[in-house]
Amino acid sequence: MIRLSVLYPTTDGAEFDHDYYRDQHVPLALRTWGLTEADAEVDRGVDGPYVAAVHLRFPSLEAMGTAMAVDGTAAVLADVANYTSITPVLQTSEIV
Amino acid sequence: MIRLSVLYPTTDGAEFDHDYYRDQHVPLALRTWGLTEADAEVDRGVDGPYVAAVHLRFPSLEAMGTAMAVDGTAAVLADVANYTSITPVLQTSEIV
Repeated sequence: MIRLSVLYPTTDGAEFDHDYYRDQHVPLALRTWGLTEADAEVDRGVDGPYVAAVHLRFPSLEAMGTAMAVDGTAAVLADVANYTSITPVLQTSEIV
Repeated sequence: MIRLSVLYPTTDGAEFDHDYYRDQHVPLALRTWGLTEADAEVDRGVDGPYVAAVHLRFPSLEAMGTAMAVDGTAAVLADVANYTSITPVLQTSEIV
């Protein structure tokens, strides 16, 4: 099982719309990549370097690659501007 | 629900014993803080800045604070040297 974590560093002067992220953007990403709500967790930072994050579970690296190769991924990336100007950190891991 | 993520940045010249982490250290932390295996996920980095991580779920910030205030926490921290010299990044978030 693979975890893709998208981590948004807290950045002075940059905002993050948590409601839009949870209610609009992450559902768009899930629909685009064939994931369900059970495959995703959205975090709102309380303490530490990240203001927000999402953790997405894929069955394998191959499944993740296939899912993200769809045309709709461009729309997901374009949607980011609707909730933040922060560039996220991407971490791919195997859940052991 | 609260997530405590302990993220180990990949560091030149520093090693990380994934087996010890998964089989010894994380179970010690779970026993010390009253968590079960269902409350924890251990990640092995595949791509991105972190070589390893653990994600621990607590019912609340208060529960996390109470759990980590036990005397055994010192032993958990001392155990880190048995698997790495890397200083982790700690992120506390609310799972929304």
